[in-house]
Amino acid sequence: MNSFGRIFRISIFGESHGDSVGINIDGCPAGLPLAVEDFLADIERRKGGTQKGTTPRKEDDIPIFKTGLFNGKTTGAPITILFENKNTRSGDYEKQRAVPRPGHADFVGHKKFGGFEDYRGGGHFSGRLTVALVAAGVISKKLLALKNITTVSTITEIGGEKDLEKGLQKAIDAKDSVGGIVESRTENLPIGLGEPFFDSAESLLSHIVFAIPAVRGIEFGTGFEAAKMFGSDHNDAIENMNGKTKTNHAGGIVGGITNGNELVFRIAIKPTSSTPKEQETLNWETNQVETFSVKGRHDLCIALRVPVILEAVTAVVLADLLLLEQKIPRVLG
Amino acid sequence: MNSFGRIFRISIFGESHGDSVGINIDGCPAGLPLAVEDFLADIERRKGGTQKGTTPRKEDDIPIFKTGLFNGKTTGAPITILFENKNTRSGDYEKQRAVPRPGHADFVGHKKFGGFEDYRGGGHFSGRLTVALVAAGVISKKLLALKNITTVSTITEIGGEKDLEKGLQKAIDAKDSVGGIVESRTENLPIGLGEPFFDSAESLLSHIVFAIPAVRGIEFGTGFEAAKMFGSDHNDAIENMNGKTKTNHAGGIVGGITNGNELVFRIAIKPTSSTPKEQETLNWETNQVETFSVKGRHDLCIALRVPVILEAVTAVVLADLLLLEQKIPRVLG
Amino acid sequence: MNSFGRIFRISIFGESHGDSVGINIDGCPAGLPLAVEDFLADIERRKGGTQKGTTPRKEDDIPIFKTGLFNGKTTGAPITILFENKNTRSGDYEKQRAVPRPGHADFVGHKKFGGFEDYRGGGHFSGRLTVALVAAGVISKKLLALKNITTVSTITEIGGEKDLEKGLQKAIDAKDSVGGIVESRTENLPIGLGEPFFDSAESLLSHIVFAIPAVRGIEFGTGFEAAKMFGSDHNDAIENMNGKTKTNHAGGIVGGITNGNELVFRIAIKPTSSTPKEQETLNWETNQVETFSVKGRHDLCIALRVPVILEAVTAVVLADLLLLEQKIPRVLG
Amino acid sequence: MNSFGRIFRISIFGESHGDSVGINIDGCPAGLPLAVEDFLADIERRKGGTQKGTTPRKEDDIPIFKTGLFNGKTTGAPITILFENKNTRSGDYEKQRAVPRPGHADFVGHKKFGGFEDYRGGGHFSGRLTVALVAAGVISKKLLALKNITTVSTITEIGGEKDLEKGLQKAIDAKDSVGGIVESRTENLPIGLGEPFFDSAESLLSHIVFAIPAVRGIEFGTGFEAAKMFGSDHNDAIENMNGKTKTNHAGGIVGGITNGNELVFRIAIKPTSSTPKEQETLNWETNQVETFSVKGRHDLCIALRVPVILEAVTAVVLADLLLLEQKIPRVLG
Repeated sequence: MNSFGRIFRISIFGESHGDSVGINIDGCPAGLPLAVEDFLADIERRKGGTQKGTTPRKEDDIPIFKTGLFNGKTTGAPITILFENKNTRSGDYEKQRAVPRPGHADFVGHKKFGGFEDYRGGGHFSGRLTVALVAAGVISKKLLALKNITTVSTITEIGGEKDLEKGLQKAIDAKDSVGGIVESRTENLPIGLGEPFFDSAESLLSHIVFAIPAVRGIEFGTGFEAAKMFGSDHNDAIENMNGKTKTNHAGGIVGGITNGNELVFRIAIKPTSSTPKEQETLNWETNQVETFSVKGRHDLCIALRVPVILEAVTAVVLADLLLLEQKIPRVLG
Repeated sequence: MNSFGRIFRISIFGESHGDSVGINIDGCPAGLPLAVEDFLADIERRKGGTQKGTTPRKEDDIPIFKTGLFNGKTTGAPITILFENKNTRSGDYEKQRAVPRPGHADFVGHKKFGGFEDYRGGGHFSGRLTVALVAAGVISKKLLALKNITTVSTITEIGGEKDLEKGLQKAIDAKDSVGGIVESRTENLPIGLGEPFFDSAESLLSHIVFAIPAVRGIEFGTGFEAAKMFGSDHNDAIENMNGKTKTNHAGGIVGGITNGNELVFRIAIKPTSSTPKEQETLNWETNQVETFSVKGRHDLCIALRVPVILEAVTAVVLADLLLLEQKIPRVLG
Repeated sequence: MNSFGRIFRISIFGESHGDSVGINIDGCPAGLPLAVEDFLADIERRKGGTQKGTTPRKEDDIPIFKTGLFNGKTTGAPITILFENKNTRSGDYEKQRAVPRPGHADFVGHKKFGGFEDYRGGGHFSGRLTVALVAAGVISKKLLALKNITTVSTITEIGGEKDLEKGLQKAIDAKDSVGGIVESRTENLPIGLGEPFFDSAESLLSHIVFAIPAVRGIEFGTGFEAAKMFGSDHNDAIENMNGKTKTNHAGGIVGGITNGNELVFRIAIKPTSSTPKEQETLNWETNQVETFSVKGRHDLCIALRVPVILEAVTAVVLADLLLLEQKIPRVLG
Repeated sequence: MNSFGRIFRISIFGESHGDSVGINIDGCPAGLPLAVEDFLADIERRKGGTQKGTTPRKEDDIPIFKTGLFNGKTTGAPITILFENKNTRSGDYEKQRAVPRPGHADFVGHKKFGGFEDYRGGGHFSGRLTVALVAAGVISKKLLALKNITTVSTITEIGGEKDLEKGLQKAIDAKDSVGGIVESRTENLPIGLGEPFFDSAESLLSHIVFAIPAVRGIEFGTGFEAAKMFGSDHNDAIENMNGKTKTNHAGGIVGGITNGNELVFRIAIKPTSSTPKEQETLNWETNQVETFSVKGRHDLCIALRVPVILEAVTAVVLADLLLLEQKIPRVLG
């Protein structure tokens, strides 16, 4: 299923080299002002071309509102936003049809969809669809802002280096790609979002986080380090009735429920699968392993694009939980 | 919501010190033989008392089949299994009502449910409910076995030590609790389980994994280490049309879809929140921070109980995906 | 799936001649007082034996609260309620295994579940499970009462007769069974429940109404008669800002949304399938059509039991919609 | 929610006088050929202007495939189809803002969405969105055809008359609108679609049928007449192991499950709310009841457009159930 959420529910669609990609949002409260300008900054953050290490492919990426808006505000009906694909060069990919790119979904997509998949540039599997997530994020963050909640994601490590320039330079020097770590921090969340088991706040967040291509891990609060700690060191002492704790090893979630402290989690992004280096892969026509080298436009470090996407999906989950807990009304005042 | 799954759908219920805990399974194929004996080994693995470092609380934990079975086989109707709570000592907890245990859900549960929560032993938040997950796991693993799929979870690290005895001894020496790392490995999965975005195999697995109390992180394949690698090193070269790859950095999932290689992921378990050490917490009647010390029965290392639970939830997700992809029939032959 | 609802979500389970039948309710607000006594009147209304025309089978039908209650109130955790099956005589049914009862689900159940179905007394298909719906109804009606909403269902016709005694006597005289019409009326609903298309109030109500065994039709407001009217006669003129209309041909729903007027709909109940009359059916062992005659305990007119069940399912839908529209809080004050 | 279905899941969006209306279909099997030409006949059937009694508004209504198709076949990714709104005359509606049209959703939409709704021509509530349902129906019927299943809907009554011309003439003579009855018949369904309770075949069909604007009732098989029959007359005697019954009072569904006979049901369509006759309604600015008369383009009998829509929604439900029961593969051969 290409949908997520219970009240605030998003569905994404589209292909890298098709007509367009887009998103449908059902359950957004009526009365939220939305304008093209609201989207441009986040869309710009996601784009390649402006940072060392990201691909030069540029789309205008102007959101086209198709439904759900009237007089500049949401109506309560489903919102549909499209992004046209203007700048595609399919020729790069078609020659490579029988040679699945290592690290990409070409092979599994071919097997899963029986050869009917749109294989151009990854088709529906493409990172191109994250522009739709970013659009949903803009709307979600506006909802969060109603409760003074802010969510910010930043890169904390590239190629194993805290000095991000250094990490990127490693990739450039090696003519290879690198991964990174992105951290999400959200402030002013109320106590009580999430459920004890299957819909724990961590469950919902990790579910949507792994919808971001290239994510390989997620950890909340102290995360994997917690496994090395003593309990008395890891427990966060509650200091007042707002739930404020002395430390925040839990990262703002206890028992699956937000506890009123800052929500903190980190995700691991693998190095970009498309690397200039020569690699081996199977040619399924010849049934021979052959060498393969990426010619198209690609990012040295896909992690550079991830912060705005991580903010988006985090905000989507939180907006849904705030609606579910009746912290945000169905119609804005 | 206390439910998970699309076709094979589980719902858990119950409280630590109530009458019982249990599980309802909807959508299980008809014709699967089930007997009490099938459950005992896994239930035993989950129990405390038999290993150094786990709590002496013992329930008989005999599964009581209430519905969905006839002549020793599943009927296709919902299966309900109860586990009675026999060995509860609520007195331990009631005195502590106004003193939320650090690291536990007492405080957030109180806030979320307005004081109506069953606070005895964590109530619905209790790890006691994982026995219901284990029961679902037994059934799911029987379904996986139909396709020769096996899933095994093991502890790989305790208290930061690969030598597990040493890790436990650290806790005993410090009179404290420790965490650990548990690894899941699944063999013989077909290519094609999972969806490109929101229902990626990682999304579904992580969603349910974070329903296990005390999990703080999850990583697939090389996981967080991937963020430090070069792309050419991380990519797994496909070697044949079964999708077999030379390496398995991806952990068996590419583009959200199983790729025919071993499914490998690891989770981080925090140290048991209930530690013998004195700690600080808020008394919400006096509004004073006071010291607190656990008297009840508790595990030095909750991670010791987790492998069988991790196998269970992994199998639950995979059974559902196999049904969705029509790899398992709705009625067994 | 044996579940229904988005926030207030019910799941039913059990078989006619198994250990028990029951219900799980997830998403019920915390803080609602519940006692066995709350259930007895409605359970009594559903029971056979007290009215001419209903079967003498009597269960004590005391609800057994398994989970989700503490100190006499709901906790916000899933509520599980069981009803034991005490008064079963399976022998009546086992002899008839290969002879599917006309009008019953024996044949389709056998085909759908491959012969693994519990065939005793209809198994999971049994009307016995409606006692679980009645229990959900008691809880739902208590939620509705918080907003002063009352829902009442009554029989308006039996065997084609408005004079109900006369209708029943027809069945007795003919040594046959008869059907009937049941009408549902709900007062004090707010404007705005339901959605324009797939989750229209009519969609949700009809969905759950057809979960009641023996229902063959549903109509809202003027219903099938509306198809014979002129538009100017059918339209209900709005008279004030509360949405009060001069007439109520719409039955309280316009465009899928409640309009503030009385919610009115009717359902058609077929005559009880088990009739004392001799009938033909297939014997699937001999592959011969043979005559068949019901010996067990059965109702002359199943419609007599339906009003309390219709109230229940109506209340279940409305409780869910009230939560979704934030008209009822997640935690009661 | 504007979505429906479990595996084959449709979502509709758009407004009568906005940019466009459309549909997203998730879970459609890969490999189904689709061309614009496949849609034209059904879209034509739905259109006004070609029959006496339907509105002269004409859109070209060419389906615009945005996503999910590649080389003329479905890819397994979500399919998005848009229909542009070209022929709108919003001026007709804007003057009437404060005067809710009787029988329409203007008033409830205004109340539910707080005045933020797109009120032009009914906005999201408009029957215009049924063109999106028709598109989903074309695809669903192609899936049904794989199993040789055909579904056909026809008008059986207009304005209370079996002679349809006569019924229409009544409306013309009275300068008013009329309703009608539409019947759905589906052949070659396998035994076993649907579930015993909440997802009974009747539940799912009625759920989606009430998404069609103007539907006021639904009845299966003998329907409301069944309430007047004796059980021995109503029961359908099974004649052979294919489940063929002597009569078909059940309309092809027993116990919520298809029984291998023809699926038959009927729906009641109210007279078009927009009638040329003068009517009363509230002016919410003046708070006065005033007379109102429709000037825009409208149907004398909306039921004339319904058959193709009823076929569509019927096929959508059945396609989903066939996938769920693994009667249709996820990838076409």
